[in-house]
Amino acid sequence: MSITFPQGFVASAAAAGIKGGGRLDLALVATADGIPVPTAAVFTTNLAAAAPVLVSREHLKRSSGHAVSLIVNSGNANAGTGRSGREDAERICREVADLLGREPWEILICSTGIIGRPLPIEQISRALPELVEHRSMDREQALSAASAIMTTDTRIKEVAISVDGFRIGGMAKGAAMLAPNMATMLAVLTTDAELEPEQLLKALKSSVECSFNAISVDGCTSTNDTVAILASGKAGPVPYDRFEQALADACTDLAEMMVADAEGGSVVFVVEVAGAFSDAEARQAARRVTESLLVKCSMNGADPYWGRIMSELGSAGVHFASDALEIAYGGVVVCRGGVEVDHDREAVRSHMSSKRIEVYCNLGIGGGRAVMKGADLGYGYIDENRGTS
Amino acid sequence: MSITFPQGFVASAAAAGIKGGGRLDLALVATADGIPVPTAAVFTTNLAAAAPVLVSREHLKRSSGHAVSLIVNSGNANAGTGRSGREDAERICREVADLLGREPWEILICSTGIIGRPLPIEQISRALPELVEHRSMDREQALSAASAIMTTDTRIKEVAISVDGFRIGGMAKGAAMLAPNMATMLAVLTTDAELEPEQLLKALKSSVECSFNAISVDGCTSTNDTVAILASGKAGPVPYDRFEQALADACTDLAEMMVADAEGGSVVFVVEVAGAFSDAEARQAARRVTESLLVKCSMNGADPYWGRIMSELGSAGVHFASDALEIAYGGVVVCRGGVEVDHDREAVRSHMSSKRIEVYCNLGIGGGRAVMKGADLGYGYIDENRGTS
Repeated sequence: MSITFPQGFVASAAAAGIKGGGRLDLALVATADGIPVPTAAVFTTNLAAAAPVLVSREHLKRSSGHAVSLIVNSGNANAGTGRSGREDAERICREVADLLGREPWEILICSTGIIGRPLPIEQISRALPELVEHRSMDREQALSAASAIMTTDTRIKEVAISVDGFRIGGMAKGAAMLAPNMATMLAVLTTDAELEPEQLLKALKSSVECSFNAISVDGCTSTNDTVAILASGKAGPVPYDRFEQALADACTDLAEMMVADAEGGSVVFVVEVAGAFSDAEARQAARRVTESLLVKCSMNGADPYWGRIMSELGSAGVHFASDALEIAYGGVVVCRGGVEVDHDREAVRSHMSSKRIEVYCNLGIGGGRAVMKGADLGYGYIDENRGTS
Repeated sequence: MSITFPQGFVASAAAAGIKGGGRLDLALVATADGIPVPTAAVFTTNLAAAAPVLVSREHLKRSSGHAVSLIVNSGNANAGTGRSGREDAERICREVADLLGREPWEILICSTGIIGRPLPIEQISRALPELVEHRSMDREQALSAASAIMTTDTRIKEVAISVDGFRIGGMAKGAAMLAPNMATMLAVLTTDAELEPEQLLKALKSSVECSFNAISVDGCTSTNDTVAILASGKAGPVPYDRFEQALADACTDLAEMMVADAEGGSVVFVVEVAGAFSDAEARQAARRVTESLLVKCSMNGADPYWGRIMSELGSAGVHFASDALEIAYGGVVVCRGGVEVDHDREAVRSHMSSKRIEVYCNLGIGGGRAVMKGADLGYGYIDENRGTS
């Protein structure tokens, strides 16, 4: 189900030969009745934004936050492709719009994959009629769509939530370059809740902040990141707060799947920073620890070396005093007042050897708090990223 | 020669058993006549600064920028050791001062090694009389001192420069956590030029900026970084500009040795950013590229994937426009106007397989320029850093 779980949506997938080997590489989500619905999206902050990001931004503006369909291709990012890349993205939207009997600016487009190579536009164009034709509410098609957007992901990422009479569904791809400010990750969500585009965007922004922007694999921010949501309204109006919470839950689920499936990663570690000067400083400190190469290597080696945590906190650019610092692994305090304290080493060792390591840091300064999730750094990441060709 | 190359300095080394296995782990530099001389130092910006950093800062303040000797221990950082760590550092200074017939605040101290463990202070104390006793101008002792400060370094790092009648000598240790703002790296320099403490500090700061702060291994900033210089004045007054240039050259030589000997690194890559809005933005962009995990992996795999360079530049927080961007590897332009251009792939491949890869990025916006040197990310780094115990 996932993206077709809420009422009013259809999906489909196709193999256009971008990836090769007959693998699915095109996914479509559309409203079942072919009518545009309130739509919101959050895009990468990267100034080298890819063509599909530029085009989708413009379309959402022109349609005042409405879309009838969203198309995704994997295998090619259509980034670093200049004006012709942009023309390609616009052409795809135009052709999908023609097939649906709508306007091009009612279509959003996302791409993910390698940078700097032209899209095989004729191949994609040839695959579009069948892609649009096969759209349906079937679980089968939604699953194929979720599979078609994968790149180095090893697992399909889907979510389906039902609360208080409305539903949220979603699919995502993550893996490499997953970082705050949304790095090469795509998430497409649907809901049958009835919301205005402004409310939808507000809820999406706040949900992204506590989910996708609270995970990090390598601190890189890609050219293509997009999180989008379409709201069919079929379930009628819903209380805004309920909707925002449900959307945050859905995004958190997808974000967790992304970090757990990080390129080459074998461990998820959760860094909680408490006692910071402010929430913003807590976030900054948690990010610094989560993205530290040395900490990431420690996690890979299950090494409870709190000195590295302290060193990162001390250089995170936040209020800090060694003698107020407390650090715990899996609830076992190893450092208090900035020095090592007697502790159950066996308990720490046992916790560190799990697949989910919890690091708690109390800066002992104020009431600021934040949580950030990261992936370890091992051979796998290097194997995945040392070559593209 | 190195630190005893300039007139007026002696050095020595000893094995105090901090590292174990009879390895040298204490180094001493002192003036030959036992008289304090103008001295300057730049310390880590990490707020979790180690005890020796706190003590040395205070001593330099109390002595108004003068010192008679500097002592270094390796194998233990004396960081995360609280008040007793500070007392240990002060005790070492006091004992060295007693042996030299001087005051404790005329001694500087540096430590490098593991965080969070108490110094084996009694062992160190017992080794001090012999360490002080053996100090001499011999090449042998200077070499032993340079060897005693090594941790995971695989090579001794020394420099000796003679210009216009004055000399500069130096020794350093680098390896892990080598990053801008001086990450676990120590450098001790000497000169026989005659300078006031203020001039010395000014020259040191500017030299550190273009040398140690222009290299990066992993972006981490340690608790213990220190660069210090003692000036005996034996060669008489020298033109300030000449001195600053020579000191910058000496620091650059040492920094180059550090990055070439980075933990597990096999390649040095030099990122030049030109055409930036300002020099500061050029530095920021060069740093972003140099510290990118994805770029570092590319370098390890000799993969000329310019899309990653573009993506990092676009997310570096500086003025940027894809269509003004030019990227070259080893002088071969691969991207112009933000898109790939025809180029000699064989020439790029051949350049990428060398031990020193040159990446040139022109942002096409202004006149800002900066150069930053980095190390690749391969299995070696992970092997070195996944465990400490």
